[in-house]
Formats: sequence, C-alpha cells, structure tokens
Amino acid sequence: MALLVKKFGGTSVGSIDRIEAVADLVVRSKQQGHQIVVVVSAMSGETNRLINLAKQIDATPSSRELDVLLTTGEQVSVALLAMAIIKRGHSAISLLADQAGIMTDNLFGKARIQMIPPKRLNQELEQGRIVILAGFQGRDIEGNITTLGRGGTDTTAVEVAAAIGADECQIYTDVNGVYTTDPRVEPKAKRMDYVTFEEMLELASLGAKVLQIRSVEAAGKHNLPLRVLSSFEPDHGTLISYEENPMNSKVVSGIAFSKDEVLIKVHNLDNTPEQLAELLEVFSDNNIEIDMISNFSCKGDKVGYALTVHEVDSQLAEKLIKQNLTTLNADSVTVNETVAKISVVGIGMKSNAGVAGALFRALANENINVQLISTSEIKVSVLVDEKYLELGVRALHSAFSLDQ
Amino acid sequence: MALLVKKFGGTSVGSIDRIEAVADLVVRSKQQGHQIVVVVSAMSGETNRLINLAKQIDATPSSRELDVLLTTGEQVSVALLAMAIIKRGHSAISLLADQAGIMTDNLFGKARIQMIPPKRLNQELEQGRIVILAGFQGRDIEGNITTLGRGGTDTTAVEVAAAIGADECQIYTDVNGVYTTDPRVEPKAKRMDYVTFEEMLELASLGAKVLQIRSVEAAGKHNLPLRVLSSFEPDHGTLISYEENPMNSKVVSGIAFSKDEVLIKVHNLDNTPEQLAELLEVFSDNNIEIDMISNFSCKGDKVGYALTVHEVDSQLAEKLIKQNLTTLNADSVTVNETVAKISVVGIGMKSNAGVAGALFRALANENINVQLISTSEIKVSVLVDEKYLELGVRALHSAFSLDQ
Repeated sequence: MALLVKKFGGTSVGSIDRIEAVADLVVRSKQQGHQIVVVVSAMSGETNRLINLAKQIDATPSSRELDVLLTTGEQVSVALLAMAIIKRGHSAISLLADQAGIMTDNLFGKARIQMIPPKRLNQELEQGRIVILAGFQGRDIEGNITTLGRGGTDTTAVEVAAAIGADECQIYTDVNGVYTTDPRVEPKAKRMDYVTFEEMLELASLGAKVLQIRSVEAAGKHNLPLRVLSSFEPDHGTLISYEENPMNSKVVSGIAFSKDEVLIKVHNLDNTPEQLAELLEVFSDNNIEIDMISNFSCKGDKVGYALTVHEVDSQLAEKLIKQNLTTLNADSVTVNETVAKISVVGIGMKSNAGVAGALFRALANENINVQLISTSEIKVSVLVDEKYLELGVRALHSAFSLDQ
Repeated sequence: MALLVKKFGGTSVGSIDRIEAVADLVVRSKQQGHQIVVVVSAMSGETNRLINLAKQIDATPSSRELDVLLTTGEQVSVALLAMAIIKRGHSAISLLADQAGIMTDNLFGKARIQMIPPKRLNQELEQGRIVILAGFQGRDIEGNITTLGRGGTDTTAVEVAAAIGADECQIYTDVNGVYTTDPRVEPKAKRMDYVTFEEMLELASLGAKVLQIRSVEAAGKHNLPLRVLSSFEPDHGTLISYEENPMNSKVVSGIAFSKDEVLIKVHNLDNTPEQLAELLEVFSDNNIEIDMISNFSCKGDKVGYALTVHEVDSQLAEKLIKQNLTTLNADSVTVNETVAKISVVGIGMKSNAGVAGALFRALANENINVQLISTSEIKVSVLVDEKYLELGVRALHSAFSLDQ
C-alpha cells in the first residue's frame, strides 16, 4: 500500500512488445494495492530520429523549436502505455508537462524544474487512476515547451516523487541494479542490495553510468529512497537511501573507474604558492576542471605538478600551458593519455584507516605502479597506467572481498 | 500588405526537401510585406504510422489517448518548419493548440472548435513573427488534447483565419486549383480562376475532393475568401468567394460525378402518401441517407420508387426493405450498383432555364439513357449507367463549353 513513482527509460519502452510488458508490470504493482505514477522516456531510437530530422534542416536548430520537436517522443510513449493499461481493464491517464503543471526555467535543452504542484497528480491518484507522465519535458512561465537535457526523465521521476511525497522512486533500466564494479571488467562483480546516497554519488561520478548524478543528488536532497531495478526480470534491485546496510560489514562497497582522464605534468616551476596559483588560474580562466593533482621534486629546488583533466580538455590545456611557460617560469609540459583512474568507495571508510594501505598492497602485489592518488572521506582514487586498469580493478575487487 | 493564413497538407510537408520548399514559399510571401500564419498537417505517412502503433496495442484504443498520440504528428511538422524559416533569417514561432488557445468540445477524434481567442496570434504577428500553428488539434476545457477529425487542418486554418480577420485563407495542396471536372476523366478540363461558395459546396459534396466540405461551409459562413493553390508551382490558383467572376459568362461552372451511389427500386406499392412516408421511415430510422428519388408507374394503379443511397448503406437498405415488404404492401426490391451520378453545377443557372434541356440533348446525342434526375437552384444531377460515366462527363463538358 505504497505510493510509488516508476520510471522507464527508452529501452524499457522501445517496442510495442516492451510497452505491453511494462503495462503488465505496472498492473501487477497496482493489483498489490499501490498507487502508481509512471514516468516514461521516448521509445529508444526516437529521440535520435527526431534530432536527425532537425539536423537535416539546420546544424544548429532553434533551441526552442528543438524542444517542441523532441517532446513528441515522450508524448508518443505515454499515449501508447496508457492505451496498453486501459486495454487491461485498469483506469489510466497520460499527462504531459503542462497538464501535470511541471514548471521550469526557460533554458531550452537544459531546463531546470522550478515547481511541480501536486494537485493534479493527487486528484488522478485519488480517483484510482494510474498516471502516465511524460518525462524529460516542462513548460516555462510563458507556456513554452522545454526539455531537461540528458537524464531528464530520471529528473522528472525524482522531482515528481518528491512533490507528491512518494514512498519510493523506482528507476527501471536494462540492468538489475548497481554492481560492486563493472561486470564486463570483473565477472565476479556482485549486485549490491543497498548503497548509500554518498556512495552512489561517488560511484556515479566515477563512471557507474546506471544513474544520472543529478537525479541521485536530487533524491538525496529530498531524502527520497531510490531503487534501481530491471524492467526485464522481476527482482528487488538496489535500494539507494541514507540507511547503511546493517548486514554489510565491508569497508569498501564498490569500485569505479574511468579512462577519460589525461595526465598532464608541468616541470621545473619555482616552489612558491604564487606559481601554483598562476598555474591553476590558467585552467580555471578557461573552464577546465582539474580532478587529481600533486607535486613532485625537480632538479635544484624546483618543483613540478602532476594533474589530470578530462580528455576533451587535454589538447586545450596543453596549448594553454605551452603559451604560458614563460609567465609560469616553467620549462616544459608533458602529456600522458594512456592512464586510468580506479576508485574504491565505501561509507565504511569513515571509521576505518586501513583502506589506502590495503589498496597499495594489492596493487603492488600485481606490480602496478600508482602515479597519482587522491582521497575523500569515503573514497580513495589512484591513477595507473591504462594497460593495468582491468587487472587493478580485479585485484582490488578481490582484496576488499567484494566477490564474496 | 495582407493578413494571410496559409495551410499546407501532409504531402506539402512530406519530406525535409518539401519543408524547405514551403519555408522558401512562406519567406517570399513575408518579403512581399504580408503578415502570415501558417497552419500545417503531419508529414504524409506519419498519422498512419502512429495509428498503426496504436492498433498494435488495441484495435479500439482509448479515444483520449489516441488524440494524445496523433497530435505529435503536427507538433513535429511545426517545429521543423519553424526551424527552416528561422534558418533563413526570419523570425518564426511554432504554436500548439493550447499555446494559441484553440478551445474545442471534448469529442475526442472529431472535436469541434468552440473558440479561438485572437490575442496570442495577434501578439506574435505584431512582433513581426511568422506564426507556425499546428493544425488538426485543440484542447477541451479541462486541458485534454483533442483532434478535429478528417480535414481537421483545413478546419483549423479557416477558423483561425476568421478569428484574426485574415484577408484570405490559402489552402496549398498538390493540385493548382479547382478544375471544371476531373482531368483524369476529361483531359481538356480547365482550372477555374474563380468559383462561388455555393458552387464549391455542390462540387465538393459531389466528389471534387480538393477541399473538405466542412471548411468550405465554415469559410462561407465567415465570408472568408478561400484560395486553393499548389505548393509545388507558383500560381494564383482558384479563389472561392461570394463574388461571381465578372468575366465569366458561362451558365455551368463545373461538372462533378460520383460512382458511390447505388440505385434501389421498390416495386408495386399503393399510390398513397402514407406508403411513401412508411418507406422513407425505413431509411431514416436506420440513419440511411437518400440522395435522389423519384416514382414510376407499375401495373394497375400501383406505383414504384427509385432512389439512391451511398454504396456503404446499400446492403443494409436492401435487407431492411425485404424485411418490410409486407408492411409496405410492396412486392419486390431490385438493386443496381453499376450506376453513376453526373452533376452540372453553376451559379448562372439561377437565371437560366435552358440547362436541363441542353443536358438531355447532349446525353441523347451519345445515346446515354438517364435513369433518375434531381435539380437544385444551381445544379442538375442525372443518374446513368456506370459504363457511360466518362463519355457523359466529356459530352457535357463540351456541351457547356467548359473546354474553351
């Protein structure tokens, strides 16, 4: 007897057969006595089809009109899913953004939700209806159609769940939950039953792409339990909440990794705070985010800095540093693209100091050299040669007993 | 410097190339100084694609949800056309039914427009924008999406033109106007420059399928000049208004025809008004419309009735009469499906009595027997054997000098 928001992505409603399967799933949950709001994406492939039509007309189409175009994808999905549920003898109604009252700012293509008045949704639920809500879309104060950008349907689901005070927001996807690491790298990876918001944020930002980081942040802010589960196989999935799993005695919960970082080394600077500040300003003035950073000794009393940036920024970063070598009093810059970052994440680290030690021991046993290290309260990240990525992940997965 | 509403059907926006061509056409008109509202249909094939998706889920899908689904077709068209015009450096904005304020009743799939407040449209026009309005769709008072049914985009165009006081409503299609008859039957058919509403209603209802009869009626009611023209070749098309063409001295303007009628004869009834009333009630009680009707003598003082119904009703009509033969005091019914109706139409007939005579003479010259005849102020229709249809149309087209 819970109030549930269920979100289905494009793959989950990617064909008429899949829509029928989702209808079955929703009806079963309704028959268990739950009140249900379903939030859906466009059928997989549809958004790309529409973007392709727009690009044929204009490589940079009007952003207002692109949003008018793209929102048709979700409109098709909600209508078809509502039909499928109604055919099964249950009362259902599709609602678009303006019908549900989803108000956003006017940043077309990346709008932010400003308000969801719960009135209309509650009215429909009180009449026993299953509400099928179009994800990804909103209206600005002038009635223009907006879209929420990447992961927008997740955002809609979380914000709607918060607005109506749902007991749980369930994100249905094509995997059955969040894993201790990517099973394609470590086949012994285990599905986690529970993970905390703090852990999930570190895992998501580090490359576990099951959930959009914005949605996890929003759910955490609203203290809204979030569940990731499969729309293809019935199972309880992974529950993300502020509760730590009482059964879990493990210090590390999961291992994330990324190949998107590039290591940049700047050599032979004066060892003064001003020199470091000037170096960092070169990046911040050009909106280049630095992830990891540390210093190393050079000849004499000179110092060098090793830092990582996202690979899309690395060429610009290298060019900028070369232009500023004189100003920086540095003599050279080197770039290494064949690096990878591995991060071990766990809420248990807060009260356990031995993680870094165990991590280095495990990597040393495999002769994997660590080039950079950064830590937070619940995370330790290391930068290694890219060729050792899979070996390193498997070594750490085993060292922290995640396969048990 | 006119205020124009331009309507483009599915074929006219059926591909990216066609949308680009429509954008060129609209921009040319704007550059001539006109204020323009464009009303568009879904790209050709799109509505059928969507209906097919719905039918895969439910042979009789929820009518509310079907309208939610189908209106995405027009939404795609308006966004793409607006993009194409904006790319050309002109200011344009797409509007959906709720944004323009198109209010209908709640008869999903065949809603009627109740109100179009001109405020928003006028605001956009005053700012120099080309307005691209989604045809075929509306909203009911509760904010549900509705569609207007067949020919709905024409209806939107005419009602919007009336609401904003447009100088002309221009219906762009794949032919360059209204012809004196179907050029596939008579290659000498000429495009009419002018035709009156009264004539167009007779021509439309008799099978000239260029315009939906509802739109012609609505334009006539609002005294709104309607122009039919080609979106493929620049030309002035056919203007439909209350003005008669001062250059036109012809009594007959056009010749329409239909193969959809079936001749039903009921034999040997008593020659009393009650018998005729009872016969007609058999049809009206079952919503079967009778088009032409006349009586003929039978043996003794008995009488028979010859009448025509649409072919979709003919089997039911035959069955009903057979069931009622005893009540009607009739002895038999015969059905002839191989008949065709030819109608000559012209506002000039009002002041000219010789049309029927000339018509019979022309048909007699070709040995075409007339089985039924009906007349109105501006029309004479005859029923002939279907095999004489083309010959009859050509004979009359020549007899009334329509090829000159």
